[in-house]
Amino acid sequence: MPVRSDAIAWTDRGSVRLLDQTLLPGSVHYLDIATIDAMVEAIGALRVRGAPLIGVAAAMGLAAAARAESEGAAWASGGDRTARLHWLEDAVGRLAGARPTAVNLRWAVERMHRVAIRAVEGGAGGPGLAALLHDEAERIWDEDAAMCEAMGRAGLALVPEGATILTICNTGMLATGGIGTAFGVIRTAHEAGLGIDVIACETRPLAQGARLTAWELARLGIPGRLIVDGAAAALMAAGEVDVVLAGADRIAANGDTANKVGTYGLAVLARAHDIPFYVVAPSSTVDLMTASGDGIPIEERPAAEVAAVSGITVYNPAFDVTPAELMSAIVTDRGVLHPPYERALAGARSGAPAPPE
Amino acid sequence: MPVRSDAIAWTDRGSVRLLDQTLLPGSVHYLDIATIDAMVEAIGALRVRGAPLIGVAAAMGLAAAARAESEGAAWASGGDRTARLHWLEDAVGRLAGARPTAVNLRWAVERMHRVAIRAVEGGAGGPGLAALLHDEAERIWDEDAAMCEAMGRAGLALVPEGATILTICNTGMLATGGIGTAFGVIRTAHEAGLGIDVIACETRPLAQGARLTAWELARLGIPGRLIVDGAAAALMAAGEVDVVLAGADRIAANGDTANKVGTYGLAVLARAHDIPFYVVAPSSTVDLMTASGDGIPIEERPAAEVAAVSGITVYNPAFDVTPAELMSAIVTDRGVLHPPYERALAGARSGAPAPPE
Repeated sequence: MPVRSDAIAWTDRGSVRLLDQTLLPGSVHYLDIATIDAMVEAIGALRVRGAPLIGVAAAMGLAAAARAESEGAAWASGGDRTARLHWLEDAVGRLAGARPTAVNLRWAVERMHRVAIRAVEGGAGGPGLAALLHDEAERIWDEDAAMCEAMGRAGLALVPEGATILTICNTGMLATGGIGTAFGVIRTAHEAGLGIDVIACETRPLAQGARLTAWELARLGIPGRLIVDGAAAALMAAGEVDVVLAGADRIAANGDTANKVGTYGLAVLARAHDIPFYVVAPSSTVDLMTASGDGIPIEERPAAEVAAVSGITVYNPAFDVTPAELMSAIVTDRGVLHPPYERALAGARSGAPAPPE
Repeated sequence: MPVRSDAIAWTDRGSVRLLDQTLLPGSVHYLDIATIDAMVEAIGALRVRGAPLIGVAAAMGLAAAARAESEGAAWASGGDRTARLHWLEDAVGRLAGARPTAVNLRWAVERMHRVAIRAVEGGAGGPGLAALLHDEAERIWDEDAAMCEAMGRAGLALVPEGATILTICNTGMLATGGIGTAFGVIRTAHEAGLGIDVIACETRPLAQGARLTAWELARLGIPGRLIVDGAAAALMAAGEVDVVLAGADRIAANGDTANKVGTYGLAVLARAHDIPFYVVAPSSTVDLMTASGDGIPIEERPAAEVAAVSGITVYNPAFDVTPAELMSAIVTDRGVLHPPYERALAGARSGAPAPPE
């Protein structure tokens, strides 16, 4: 069994127990979520974040909310398929809209929706529907954890012994259903005894690197240093960075990748210093319906995340887009994909065997 | 008369009234400084920062402390030249060592030291010495303010009408004795009616962009936006940046420039996006004794400025070095210097006329 993230769990009564990541590392506090509203709030406020984990959380939230509904009068009385389908459509729409950039969120809730529609149309009652959704959310979670392990194994080949790996944001157990994407490769390399060292970028404005990646490094005893985002270039120039690993919130059909703001700059800097730059993401992150990075919506976050002075305008995009040509390779659960990415990504996304390397 | 910074002043009794910049923008609080210890603490703790302003503040601090000494019994009794020279040497050494990277600091206190030695050797008594030091500090301050205006005028030629100017850290009245270096060019361009727009990088870890530059922009009504440091690359890629302007803490003889950490990354990114990158600094920032950037000591600051988690190592350099080849030009009070910089910088530093452009 692959290692599952402990940032999320079921409670005994089928609701979602969610680690509130906005309070880390100061406070380890869990939320108990049983409604669509509460899960939409948790995703929007970044209490749960990381594209793969958002997908898992939304699926679990839908299952938990359906179970709560199934215990209420409206669903228990059975019969009204149309009302149930409306409820599902509304719930799925609100979950999918909670954040615009990550595609795993939409992917996961649409998968849940298809299962639910089939069940309702097949005559499933409220409790039966809720049970099916619970099982499907479990599968999504398990598959994500398994994809993390597969990415970790695939990425291992790209990490030289004793390498110093620079990474941005948090891409570990706090970002996925398993050991992580980019961080999963780091953890796998560490556990394989490669003697790696990590440089974690702080990742402003919400400091996921300083708060979350540093926390995960410390928990796992992986050697690492924390830097401000602006210090990455000088470390590259000093020859102190061997590999850059980043996650992804959405990968377009041509390989262009949206990820945490700052990733694109690191990719340009890595190229200028001749350092390999790899994106690590599960195949659920690939969006074949978006041809290139130009089509990826970039979420703007509130000014209050950045501003210290009133009276100044803040531009606070949560993501940026790294063009495919700046990536040395894309590490997925289907293996390491090399340019040109179009065909390889289409294969990875459809579940076809990965092309030979 | 050039506009003087209001971040520093004399009190009626000859001590230094210093705006505590660590409390901005939340609180406008002034310190009253009359000892070397207090000025060294203020410089080390970044209550006063910005290479040119540190130089002015150290000179004023030395004058204020000499005046306080001259009112004490030891100096008032006159006579003991050796004791006075020892006091000066100790004071100058401690002030010069308060921060290692900025060269204006050393330049200013050494200039003060030369004046003082001449005076003591010429037989000046305590009060006479203090008055001479006060006058010399005034001259340093005035000259710095005049250099700011000269840089503003020189830099104007590099700013296209309606340009969007990206800048890092704070280089305005809170960083100099006058209107600023890079920010002085911005202010001059704004006041010349060029219709410019500013993008201020937050500048972690101490957020001089978000706290100080945003505050100066708002005070002066200059249109601007604040971004996290990691967002600069995406804005460049989107074609939203026309010019990058940065200050300098030390310019080596070959043009390599130490400035706030993150500056080097912006220079690499500017080059990759074909955007001109200019350093703006007074000639007092040029250090002909340091051949290249390799010889510039880079101050490391405390981990607490960055860390959110205990148990993780922090690497927190305050500065990085931008190689001369990444700079489109260097704007000084002696005019705009173009590559190769060696001869032009030597001329600017020695006070010789600037070479023709």
